[in-house]
Amino acid sequence: MTDFAATRARFHLPEGLIYLDGNSLGPLPLAAADRVAATIRDEWGDMLIRGWNAAGWMDMPARVGDRIGRLIGAAPGTVVMGDTLSIKVYQALAAAVELNPGRRVILSDSGNFPSDLYIAEGLCRTLGQGFRLVTVAPGEVEAALSPEVAVMMLTEVDYRTGRLHDMAGLTAAAHAAGALTVWDLAHSAGALPVDLAGAGADFAVGCTYKYLNSGPGGPAFIYVAPRWADRARPALSGWLGHDAPFAFEPSYRPGRGIERMRVGTPPILQLAALEAALDVWDIADIRDVRARSIELTEAFISGVEAACPGLVLASPRAPAARGSQVSFRHPEGYAIMQALIARGVIGDFRAPDILRFGFTPLFIGMQEVRDAVEVLAEVMATAAWDRPAYRARARVT
Amino acid sequence: MTDFAATRARFHLPEGLIYLDGNSLGPLPLAAADRVAATIRDEWGDMLIRGWNAAGWMDMPARVGDRIGRLIGAAPGTVVMGDTLSIKVYQALAAAVELNPGRRVILSDSGNFPSDLYIAEGLCRTLGQGFRLVTVAPGEVEAALSPEVAVMMLTEVDYRTGRLHDMAGLTAAAHAAGALTVWDLAHSAGALPVDLAGAGADFAVGCTYKYLNSGPGGPAFIYVAPRWADRARPALSGWLGHDAPFAFEPSYRPGRGIERMRVGTPPILQLAALEAALDVWDIADIRDVRARSIELTEAFISGVEAACPGLVLASPRAPAARGSQVSFRHPEGYAIMQALIARGVIGDFRAPDILRFGFTPLFIGMQEVRDAVEVLAEVMATAAWDRPAYRARARVT
Repeated sequence: MTDFAATRARFHLPEGLIYLDGNSLGPLPLAAADRVAATIRDEWGDMLIRGWNAAGWMDMPARVGDRIGRLIGAAPGTVVMGDTLSIKVYQALAAAVELNPGRRVILSDSGNFPSDLYIAEGLCRTLGQGFRLVTVAPGEVEAALSPEVAVMMLTEVDYRTGRLHDMAGLTAAAHAAGALTVWDLAHSAGALPVDLAGAGADFAVGCTYKYLNSGPGGPAFIYVAPRWADRARPALSGWLGHDAPFAFEPSYRPGRGIERMRVGTPPILQLAALEAALDVWDIADIRDVRARSIELTEAFISGVEAACPGLVLASPRAPAARGSQVSFRHPEGYAIMQALIARGVIGDFRAPDILRFGFTPLFIGMQEVRDAVEVLAEVMATAAWDRPAYRARARVT
Repeated sequence: MTDFAATRARFHLPEGLIYLDGNSLGPLPLAAADRVAATIRDEWGDMLIRGWNAAGWMDMPARVGDRIGRLIGAAPGTVVMGDTLSIKVYQALAAAVELNPGRRVILSDSGNFPSDLYIAEGLCRTLGQGFRLVTVAPGEVEAALSPEVAVMMLTEVDYRTGRLHDMAGLTAAAHAAGALTVWDLAHSAGALPVDLAGAGADFAVGCTYKYLNSGPGGPAFIYVAPRWADRARPALSGWLGHDAPFAFEPSYRPGRGIERMRVGTPPILQLAALEAALDVWDIADIRDVRARSIELTEAFISGVEAACPGLVLASPRAPAARGSQVSFRHPEGYAIMQALIARGVIGDFRAPDILRFGFTPLFIGMQEVRDAVEVLAEVMATAAWDRPAYRARARVT
């Protein structure tokens, strides 16, 4: 059983705050600060250019990718780090549509994170030839799997409501309809058990600054199923995805397997922070994290519903149907969140009316849940959020 | 006049090394170590998610871009940071070809950095419809500007030889032929004066870990001329390039001007290192840097040619025709470089036979030039590089 007091001791948590926004930016792991300082001083500072080999910088995208792979059911050598999530979405989609010729639709749902949809739109424009993005309601994805669908692109956990898709079921349905799959694990990796190989997923992508605590702008990851890894053509064919980057050949030849999904020079300082942040998983089991997360979210929901009748649950009520966050709706959601933050309870707001609270058992326990409910009840009772200053800001967001 | 003793004092330079590889990875600015530590501790650690506004993270790509703009002749609001150079090449090329419809050729030269060529190949594959990359010898670019050329994509300074293109002349020739231009400033920014606006350049891109000393994997930059900034369509249409990223609209609307060239969440730790690294330009004038660089490279060339007759100059002999590096050819170039590195002179090797030495006046002076010549002469005289261990490694590179 994971010792959550021990995991919590690994983070810097400012006094007086209840941080329910680890689903947006994870807090600082103490080891990350030390690791980055050492990378700067001992590697960049003293090794200089030799760090690429001597400090293992060049291998970091694959080495760190393997560590994330363990959390998402991906075999060694199937995950690589780099770039941002949006870039990784572009790579995955471009490769997937090419592997499924003759079909011109990228299918997604309206609960997907907008950047994934924007990137798909942009790719379709560049591809031309009738490629198009189709979005349906989250519950209607399976029914929309027509013979035109080349790729089904879904985010497993909805960023607003926390609604959790059935990855295995939807992947099987997509495959039965002849479509490939791209799964975005932004709100899954480090939050709940993911089994990419077991689900038969084709491609997956995700970011690391949320539940993996890599810090602001930490690098993204991409997974390619082994059956596609040597066939997927990189659209972003950068030199570090070349089979022999330092041969400086005039033409591109994709590297072996997942290596071809690398593009340019990896961000070593951010990777160092991430690598240190992943050490907590040496003492944490993702199944324990999931079980504890459900306890915390159940307690939060029942506490808020009892104390704050004006807030309407926006997340699925069944814990198995949601990720590690709880969302409530209120027309003055922005102002309410500002009032909460002013009192030290940090969640966030997502337009138009969502109050979002992330529960990350690595550093949040039942006491914080109770305290957060109490502060939220106070705010709702005193209507601090209804003062002109809050309302004015709410209007322009 | 720039005080180069003062600029040198701002860097951590390991004892016993002569570092002639600042053109590959600049050394650690002391301020960068402090700045990153503060960003981690005081911003990520204590502000958590609030850092995006309170610490100015969200504005960093534009704020830091403006500081680089001053070094490359770009007006405020025309440069933005993010991603890697290869990604920025893709964005610039994709936007440029769309702004020049009816033409299907991307013209480059065989001295361009391979990743730029690979990225162009990949973009042409995705575009289809007969788009293609044509490369000619560096001296034949102007003659190759046919009416089919949509974009001329060149790296101003050749990564192997240091040969410097005439940016103003070639840009004018491209425009006269109806082509747009994408300039890669990887080996220019921070090395020599660049005047993008004066040259009439359309797009430019560059990296920051070379002469701008941002550390391993520091972010890239992109410049879009004001006349195109609101017309360039982003192919990599990520949410932070959206006109209203936090409105979470279902469809993409490009942001104003250069902001649309942002893609995903910016790498704040790497940007913090870069921002601190740029402080040296408060006390350094790029024209002084260029003048001193020419003194250093002239001295190195004459010293090496006098002492090492076996090495053949691969860089242009006229200082105005080269950047801030000097390259020599030798069939055993790899082994020679290994022997040099073993003796504390750090340059690098580029296949098949190039020994490359960067001269960065911010921290390299005439004494290092003399010492480097002496060590190189010793190595050539003793044939340390001709031992089996070196030769064996040379074969597999």
